[in-house]
Amino acid sequence: MSDLAELSVTDAASAFAKGEVTAEAMVRACLARIDAHDVKVNTVIRLDREAALEAAAAQDKARAGGVALGKLAGVPMMHKDMYYRTGKVSTCGSKIRRDFTPTVTATALQRLDAAGAIDMGTLNMAEFAQNPTGHNAHFGDCHNPWNLPYCTGGSSSGSGAGVAARFFAAALGSDTGGSIRLPASICGVTGIKGTQTRVPRTGVMPLSFSMDNVGPLTRTARDAARVMTVISGSDDIDPTAAPEAVPDYEAALTGDIRGLRIAVPHEWFFDSADDIVVTAFEAALEVLKARGATVDYVACPSLRAIGAYVAVVSRVEGATIHANWMRDHPGDYAIHLSGRLYGGYAIPGTYYLEALSRRGALLRQFCKEAFIDHDIVATPTLRMRVPTLAETDIDVDPAANWARHMAVSANTRPFNYLGLPTVSVPCGLDDRGLPMGLQLSARPFGEGRALMVADAYQQDTDWHARMPPLA
Amino acid sequence: MSDLAELSVTDAASAFAKGEVTAEAMVRACLARIDAHDVKVNTVIRLDREAALEAAAAQDKARAGGVALGKLAGVPMMHKDMYYRTGKVSTCGSKIRRDFTPTVTATALQRLDAAGAIDMGTLNMAEFAQNPTGHNAHFGDCHNPWNLPYCTGGSSSGSGAGVAARFFAAALGSDTGGSIRLPASICGVTGIKGTQTRVPRTGVMPLSFSMDNVGPLTRTARDAARVMTVISGSDDIDPTAAPEAVPDYEAALTGDIRGLRIAVPHEWFFDSADDIVVTAFEAALEVLKARGATVDYVACPSLRAIGAYVAVVSRVEGATIHANWMRDHPGDYAIHLSGRLYGGYAIPGTYYLEALSRRGALLRQFCKEAFIDHDIVATPTLRMRVPTLAETDIDVDPAANWARHMAVSANTRPFNYLGLPTVSVPCGLDDRGLPMGLQLSARPFGEGRALMVADAYQQDTDWHARMPPLA
Repeated sequence: MSDLAELSVTDAASAFAKGEVTAEAMVRACLARIDAHDVKVNTVIRLDREAALEAAAAQDKARAGGVALGKLAGVPMMHKDMYYRTGKVSTCGSKIRRDFTPTVTATALQRLDAAGAIDMGTLNMAEFAQNPTGHNAHFGDCHNPWNLPYCTGGSSSGSGAGVAARFFAAALGSDTGGSIRLPASICGVTGIKGTQTRVPRTGVMPLSFSMDNVGPLTRTARDAARVMTVISGSDDIDPTAAPEAVPDYEAALTGDIRGLRIAVPHEWFFDSADDIVVTAFEAALEVLKARGATVDYVACPSLRAIGAYVAVVSRVEGATIHANWMRDHPGDYAIHLSGRLYGGYAIPGTYYLEALSRRGALLRQFCKEAFIDHDIVATPTLRMRVPTLAETDIDVDPAANWARHMAVSANTRPFNYLGLPTVSVPCGLDDRGLPMGLQLSARPFGEGRALMVADAYQQDTDWHARMPPLA
Repeated sequence: MSDLAELSVTDAASAFAKGEVTAEAMVRACLARIDAHDVKVNTVIRLDREAALEAAAAQDKARAGGVALGKLAGVPMMHKDMYYRTGKVSTCGSKIRRDFTPTVTATALQRLDAAGAIDMGTLNMAEFAQNPTGHNAHFGDCHNPWNLPYCTGGSSSGSGAGVAARFFAAALGSDTGGSIRLPASICGVTGIKGTQTRVPRTGVMPLSFSMDNVGPLTRTARDAARVMTVISGSDDIDPTAAPEAVPDYEAALTGDIRGLRIAVPHEWFFDSADDIVVTAFEAALEVLKARGATVDYVACPSLRAIGAYVAVVSRVEGATIHANWMRDHPGDYAIHLSGRLYGGYAIPGTYYLEALSRRGALLRQFCKEAFIDHDIVATPTLRMRVPTLAETDIDVDPAANWARHMAVSANTRPFNYLGLPTVSVPCGLDDRGLPMGLQLSARPFGEGRALMVADAYQQDTDWHARMPPLA
């Protein structure tokens, strides 16, 4: 491989551990790629060039000194600009927090640091993580490296675009309604949100505390498994973090999916879906069947209620968090975001509590419908072809673009209400050369199984290995 | 003592344990008193005469057989009609649940049963526990045994009136905004709500799950300590029940309050208070000072926000629970209750979440204001003289009676938002011969201290021992 920036997480860690590369060389390769191409893609909010080179030098020195290396030693990363690091500005993609300097470091960052990963800086994102397309009125829209006028998906826009563009090997995103899986699908990379609260949220900007998730975007399922193993698990500061023990997700990637039973819901996920998306999805299922899985279409009538409630919870919680700022300076928000927040103030508390109080029952019902006789639920991640930034821009033309904007997250949102672990992997390119994604969801705390199926799929396909044609 | 119905909980248990009385004789004495007087007071919804006599006979037999007796063996009790017992109707004071037959028995009832208490039936209450006066449009208003045209306080109206009238030694009530402490104060008995979730709520009708409490009304603080020791503690079914170990609250009743530091907030509790109430409260403080306590008036500016938020939480949660019934048959509710519920549907979810999310910070602030240098917060339980049923009836004349109706619970509600353990003990009779109450609140899980102070007060006063003049 000529360009060290193209190394995956596990390949980079492995090459570093074997002494084949220095961390500094890998970081310099990534910086060079960012310098060459980010002027078009616009992933970066803050590049910590010197700090990254110092951290790389420290890893190189540690290796030279025979110190035991972490699982991610030397691996270049950047993260969505909502993971706090003490003393460093975290804009959250907003004007309001343009100068916000946290006094806490996110637990996820601390764990990546401890594992030896190199943090090169912070990434573009939807303002306060609140749109699914990657538009940003304050830092400029993020552009899809596969085709620049097209959207990247959001809200973790820079994370998806940057991993695809080989600016770094992995990036943290956050996922409240699809914000990891959508940019993963739309930029042609792999993304996972774990079971609700699998990864602690200490030091992470909140959007909707009932549905927020921390997770990585990477090029491969194996990379995602490595990162999830590092960042998951209970936390002294976040009492909501799931206390369940964390397995080595990577160790479970056997590739053996013989007898695996896949369910595809009839409902919801295929409403007004584009033909080419359905065709790519069905081809992906054939790959899994060829490895020994079975596929059944199942009825999931619970999805209508799930689809309605998910928006109620996230809008009320999102509007509550922003109440003081919305009162004092609503004009500092993008038009589409202040509009979304204003709507949140009109939702009755009783409807919010209805949505939350039915969550357990609807999870049980969905699991009964989909998981009693099956191990995995498969759907397209996005039900439409990737749209352009222009045709999903609701600041410019809400009347024309609203429905398309909302449809972007239709297939990902239900899994936030359900809280189920869900992975997106690339499964093709559409007729305009833009990526399509396969979404795989498992039972609660079934991260390992979803990643195992994603990895098996990637053993027989190379969509995850293709590179966008950046000139 | 000529009438066995007049025995307190601890005296009844002690007399039974020593073989001085039979459980059957105590139950018969209570039944006779109910038969003689309840036609005026209207405490009973269902009298389980035969079942009570059978349970009493079983205790008598157990004692004769030398079986180890429970802490409440032979003690006659009745409970607010919202504690479920498998197969027995639990009306919750409503028309809607007139025939509701639960398939679960409340954990609190199971613990009382196991301790040997005799359950004689169910008691009048505000409809669905949602008013502070004791009005009930379906089963008839409960009347104050001290003066029948006066209200009993609610929502545990039958519990307060029946303990005062010596119909039974103790009764469970529930307290979401004062529903134990108000009828205790207004009927001249002792009542305690513990720290939020100190007593499990399994099998108890919910009103507002963030603020509901289970607790007893008794004649003495010692009785309350005995019952709380039996019913408190974690529960296999209720995951919200506090896991903290339960001490023997009765063992802590030393009467020694030398050096105890009492805080009296300047704010809130004395707004528009009646002079005679303030005079009685100050006299109660003198009793405590004479035993060695000190009293300071303190500033508690947190109380304004606390007073505003408490109603938001309980109204939204209450309206959510009743949403299906309110849609299908709103006319089955009393006018004042459907009006209260309708209002709940108009409160934004963001305001509800604001109220909940500030709860921890306001508890910390209140504790800093009141408890840093003090052990107990003392206030009047009710800031006004006991009103009549007519002058607090908002079904008949809401315009004239609304403010008075709402003022009834003004002094008790803040402690539900704060979740602090709070006791009410009788501290006098007003110029119309109706009881007044002293409210004592302690730090979280300070039930023992609040009860200890209440007991010390009762060692020097006899208000708790006085009987209402039922002809």
